[in-house]
Amino acid sequence: MMERCLLLTGVAESGSIHFQAPEEIHFHSEEELFIQQAVVLIEDAIHYRSVNHRLDGRSIKLYRWYYSRICQWGLNAGIFVILALAFIEKPSSLSVTSDLRFKHTLWNPPCGLTEVIEIICLLVFTLDLVVKSYLIGREEFLKCKWLVGYMVVIMVSVIDWTMSLSMTCDETVRIRKLLRPFYLLQNSSLMKKSLKCIKRTLPGITSVILLVILHLCLFTIFGMLLFAKRENLEEDMERELYFKNLSQSLTSLLVLLTTANNPDVMTPAYTLHRGFSIFFILFSGFGTYFLMNLLTAIIYNQFRGYLVMSVQTSILRRCMGIRAAFDLLHCQSHRDITFSEDDTIECIPVQTVQMVMKRVQMKDYYREAIMKKACQSYSGRIPREAFQRLFDELDKDRIKKHHPLPEYSSKFLQMVQYIFTKHSVTVVGNVVALANVVCICIILVIECEKTVSEREDYLETVNCFFILYYLLEMLLKMTAFGWKTYVSYGSNIFDGSLTVLLLGLQISIFSTYRLPFSYWNPVHGGPIALWELVRLVNMLIVFRFLRIIPNIKLMALVASTLVDLVKNLRAFAGILVVVYYVFAILGVWLFKGAITAHSANLSSTVNSRIKAVNKSLQCGSYEQLGYWSNNFDDFASALVLLYNIMMMNNWNVFLDAYSRYTTEWSKIYFIAWWLTSSVMWVNLFVALILENFIYKWDRNQGCSNGDMERTNLETTVQLMFRGQIEEPTEEEVVTKLHAHHHLQHLTMSVSVDQT
Amino acid sequence: MMERCLLLTGVAESGSIHFQAPEEIHFHSEEELFIQQAVVLIEDAIHYRSVNHRLDGRSIKLYRWYYSRICQWGLNAGIFVILALAFIEKPSSLSVTSDLRFKHTLWNPPCGLTEVIEIICLLVFTLDLVVKSYLIGREEFLKCKWLVGYMVVIMVSVIDWTMSLSMTCDETVRIRKLLRPFYLLQNSSLMKKSLKCIKRTLPGITSVILLVILHLCLFTIFGMLLFAKRENLEEDMERELYFKNLSQSLTSLLVLLTTANNPDVMTPAYTLHRGFSIFFILFSGFGTYFLMNLLTAIIYNQFRGYLVMSVQTSILRRCMGIRAAFDLLHCQSHRDITFSEDDTIECIPVQTVQMVMKRVQMKDYYREAIMKKACQSYSGRIPREAFQRLFDELDKDRIKKHHPLPEYSSKFLQMVQYIFTKHSVTVVGNVVALANVVCICIILVIECEKTVSEREDYLETVNCFFILYYLLEMLLKMTAFGWKTYVSYGSNIFDGSLTVLLLGLQISIFSTYRLPFSYWNPVHGGPIALWELVRLVNMLIVFRFLRIIPNIKLMALVASTLVDLVKNLRAFAGILVVVYYVFAILGVWLFKGAITAHSANLSSTVNSRIKAVNKSLQCGSYEQLGYWSNNFDDFASALVLLYNIMMMNNWNVFLDAYSRYTTEWSKIYFIAWWLTSSVMWVNLFVALILENFIYKWDRNQGCSNGDMERTNLETTVQLMFRGQIEEPTEEEVVTKLHAHHHLQHLTMSVSVDQT
Repeated sequence: MMERCLLLTGVAESGSIHFQAPEEIHFHSEEELFIQQAVVLIEDAIHYRSVNHRLDGRSIKLYRWYYSRICQWGLNAGIFVILALAFIEKPSSLSVTSDLRFKHTLWNPPCGLTEVIEIICLLVFTLDLVVKSYLIGREEFLKCKWLVGYMVVIMVSVIDWTMSLSMTCDETVRIRKLLRPFYLLQNSSLMKKSLKCIKRTLPGITSVILLVILHLCLFTIFGMLLFAKRENLEEDMERELYFKNLSQSLTSLLVLLTTANNPDVMTPAYTLHRGFSIFFILFSGFGTYFLMNLLTAIIYNQFRGYLVMSVQTSILRRCMGIRAAFDLLHCQSHRDITFSEDDTIECIPVQTVQMVMKRVQMKDYYREAIMKKACQSYSGRIPREAFQRLFDELDKDRIKKHHPLPEYSSKFLQMVQYIFTKHSVTVVGNVVALANVVCICIILVIECEKTVSEREDYLETVNCFFILYYLLEMLLKMTAFGWKTYVSYGSNIFDGSLTVLLLGLQISIFSTYRLPFSYWNPVHGGPIALWELVRLVNMLIVFRFLRIIPNIKLMALVASTLVDLVKNLRAFAGILVVVYYVFAILGVWLFKGAITAHSANLSSTVNSRIKAVNKSLQCGSYEQLGYWSNNFDDFASALVLLYNIMMMNNWNVFLDAYSRYTTEWSKIYFIAWWLTSSVMWVNLFVALILENFIYKWDRNQGCSNGDMERTNLETTVQLMFRGQIEEPTEEEVVTKLHAHHHLQHLTMSVSVDQT
Repeated sequence: MMERCLLLTGVAESGSIHFQAPEEIHFHSEEELFIQQAVVLIEDAIHYRSVNHRLDGRSIKLYRWYYSRICQWGLNAGIFVILALAFIEKPSSLSVTSDLRFKHTLWNPPCGLTEVIEIICLLVFTLDLVVKSYLIGREEFLKCKWLVGYMVVIMVSVIDWTMSLSMTCDETVRIRKLLRPFYLLQNSSLMKKSLKCIKRTLPGITSVILLVILHLCLFTIFGMLLFAKRENLEEDMERELYFKNLSQSLTSLLVLLTTANNPDVMTPAYTLHRGFSIFFILFSGFGTYFLMNLLTAIIYNQFRGYLVMSVQTSILRRCMGIRAAFDLLHCQSHRDITFSEDDTIECIPVQTVQMVMKRVQMKDYYREAIMKKACQSYSGRIPREAFQRLFDELDKDRIKKHHPLPEYSSKFLQMVQYIFTKHSVTVVGNVVALANVVCICIILVIECEKTVSEREDYLETVNCFFILYYLLEMLLKMTAFGWKTYVSYGSNIFDGSLTVLLLGLQISIFSTYRLPFSYWNPVHGGPIALWELVRLVNMLIVFRFLRIIPNIKLMALVASTLVDLVKNLRAFAGILVVVYYVFAILGVWLFKGAITAHSANLSSTVNSRIKAVNKSLQCGSYEQLGYWSNNFDDFASALVLLYNIMMMNNWNVFLDAYSRYTTEWSKIYFIAWWLTSSVMWVNLFVALILENFIYKWDRNQGCSNGDMERTNLETTVQLMFRGQIEEPTEEEVVTKLHAHHHLQHLTMSVSVDQT
């Protein structure tokens, strides 16, 4: 028996480390403490947390409090609020339009308001930092770069905040704004891992990027040689517009690589001679199809391996948590029993396990599964291997159980139940929903030339009937299934809530406008115009039509992949948020007010008189296309602008406009954003979709048809790569546990008690 | 012994099939025939051809003649010529520009010229068809749909041809033009396989396409509800421009799905209110990033499996060829030896194998490897298993051997050899090439504002020196390595030929313009202007700079992947050619002359006076962008236009222009092309790049550094999937062989002889 306890106390017995024994331990409270510690360790295992934290009585309470739902919720709220501040801070995004020409900011926060909110958030983060670093101890704190960074970021933010207050909010640059996304990153371990993956992917990409640069440079030189200056103005158009100098040639071809100026860039030369098109087709074909797709391939290839690797550490953490909990319980139970049984196999009593499991905070479904497994298989005592295998239940798919149908005595109700639990009723419901959408569509097509106020009220009448049908369907289904079973289907909740909403809207329309004694005029007056309400009803009906998706098998697979993706890609979405945030703040800082309303008005008045006056404004420029609302004048419009650049179409317009209104160097910002968003992030996203879909597909091939329920199973990143992951070996876990500081202290106290 | 021969003659002994025995077989010529048959079967195995063809003496000669290099070359030339005809047929592409406004066709073929060429090609194809169908026999011919199709296509073409001649080339529609790509398809087995793969991928894609359509339709209805007609013109802009009716709304959103009208489509609404951007961002974000990438994932997933499957049939064909050859030789040798040895293991004499192998047409390298292996391992006789394993050599990588360096007696030459065989010399050469390119670049930047005739002749002088250096480097390397070794490196051939070309150009420049007694004026005169020649020199120097690629390791990997891709994707390139051809012919047929020079001149004169006169020509239209050279008026410009649509940027401009100039239905053509090219083909291409790169990468990870030679190994599709392919089982091969008609006849004759 001693062997196992010794394993944990190995370092302690070598005698080099001293510790404070827990003071005033009564026997009962001591057992209580053991249970508490085991509970915390198992909770760590469940949430893939590191077991490397303080484990004395007080710290455990703090630890559980820190990881309680309220605390974590508070922290997340803090992060959300501090990130959202960017919308209302000066330059505030609170205006109806972001168009330069018509922008009137509705409300600017007074100096001090956002600062007060900010300092509250910073206080929350400071508290978080203090608790976290106390729990893991000073040594570990210094090892963890993220926590040190956290401290530095908070300190810099506070200093920046005081400076900002002392200048009465008149400063132009707020460094702390740029640092804010760090809080988001720091708080999610999955995001940190993804970031690590991305960091490791970078060297692999450089080779292709180098090849792209080489490709670009060679073709730029070719292009400049090909389109050298000629005397004939007609023949010189290509050079004049796209190959005037080195910088312009590079930009033209870089943009062509993203296809954003595809036929335009070749038009002047191609008009002169067919042969010139070969130059452009070679460049864009090779660059866009070969090189850019090769980038996707490299990212997919590199990234896949690393994601598996990082999930490996999660699995190791889980194993360590379980093992530590077992060792703890084992030592404790043996101290009580005092060597009464054979000690060749290490075991712990089932009661202890049950006691621990009852107090672990986890989903009831999994708790029940584990408790059941613990009771079933082993009479009285659970050996180590079996204890570890108990927690494999956590990785198993959760099969949703539906409540039993209610039993009715009335013949009528029985018949209703018989009919409305059939699948064909759902099909009929879908057909009716389709009919409704088709109705809306037809009326839209017929009436598309009429203004909203002129429209007849067919639509409203038709919708009324359909909504009544929906209501009836819902009520009958509810009777047939019983309330609990009805609610346990996601599709029913979707249907039901939309039906109730529709009913509510319809009633409000009726009561406000249609009743003979109603106060409001149906055409113009009313708190909300009638047609706005009708429109809302129509939209909801169209939205409700989405219920058909799970009923088409292949579509259900695709749709469930999408839902899974959304769930699993939270980490990537987080990184996208971070990147958007940083670039938006940077953009606002660099380019705010670069394009002024004056220039906008000037060119718009010029435009309205004679368009051809300003010859430099060729077709396709920012001014001609009227992109005035895409600017960096506030945070919200910067986000939309960045999205538009990410979509890559016409991004050259922004590149060109900002390099005209500011300097040539502004191109660096846009190209950096292009590389980050379109090249890196989109490719990462493609890689993840490929991975996720192929996994899902392979999994679904097994259960070919029938069990649609299976496609609704939850899949986590950890589960996704389960097949490819090796379980950590016994030795690995033990060695790692040895290295942990707090566990040593703890088990040492046990062994000291025993001697 | 009889067991094996019986296996092949099993069907014959049941006695149901009768046959004609080869007439007048002398003993010597009979043995000769056996060898011939074995040779043909092994050649079939090497080229993955079916063994199912006639094997009598005369047919074998015909067969080998048919598959000889000259015949196949002739056939390919016929296919090339008939496809290339589209460029010179009316509407001929022989004009300097395809611009509607300035197009003057240089030469139109007289009626009958292209027709004569065409009928010659058709005769070649008829001959091909006759020989092919004779060789495989009537029964097999009827089973093979491709051959029947071939016959039908030729017949239809000939009928169409006669009709065309009888109408003295005045007909508008030539159906045979549309059918031409069939000859290309029919002639490549890899292409046929790829087509089968694509066909099988289609059902998998439909679910996503359905989801895309659902997404599109729902958002169209949403959009039409959202942007209903209002009284205020300012507020009605969005509807007026993009959501006027159902068809326009659908088009707008479909184009948005391809991002081709991204910021434009939201601009009017976004200018009114920020909130509208959410609608567009939701639509395009979900559609473009999720759905379109899911399509990539599905195609990748589906396609991978099928490519492996189709390669499987190639492997089966090879096994069958080898096995049939073995059985034949086995039966024959046993007839000669008449049961002299123990018959538990089936064997054939090594001499026979060597005799056969000597006559097989194959690469010498592989022949030597196989012969060597045959001699080495087995003394006198080769058992069946070993015989089959001999041909595994074909799948092995070919390791290039370089000739030994020449030995010099002269001390100076020895020193030259010592220095110039070092790697560092290559590095110095690369640095010099880089310096040259940088020089060109600098001079370009300095002189970019001067016209070509004003330019100083620094560049020429500088280039002269560099070219002399290149020449010296080439000569010294040649001396060091000796001619044969020098030529055996691809990089040296690249270097050398460019250097010789540069030298030639430089000498011609010098002799034409720079010598005191030269006749031509350097600025204007001369057969080719001086600057054209200088420009060519510069371009070649830049091109020569590409020699650095194999010297950078990661880049070499990427580049070699690209080279491999180009080799392996011939089949896909072929399918792309087919698709382009069909759509271009169809486009010319449907839209020729839709946009007339009149309308072009009209709007261009209007444009030059007051741009804003025609209000319907909003910025970004075909007319404003001056896309006049992108039209369907001849085959060449149709190809460029299709390429531009494939690149997807601004494809909506063409969609819009052709629907304005012709009918709304023309949109179907453009959308069909978008689906075929951008959606299907590009995704297939991505799938193949992913597959190819990941395979290559995994393979390269093994030999991590040093052996750069390995990255230059050839990889074929068959090799690529070698790991995933199961060898066909013994039984499978035998069963398949049994089913073959001609083999039965053949071996039957052997067994009859024996009895």
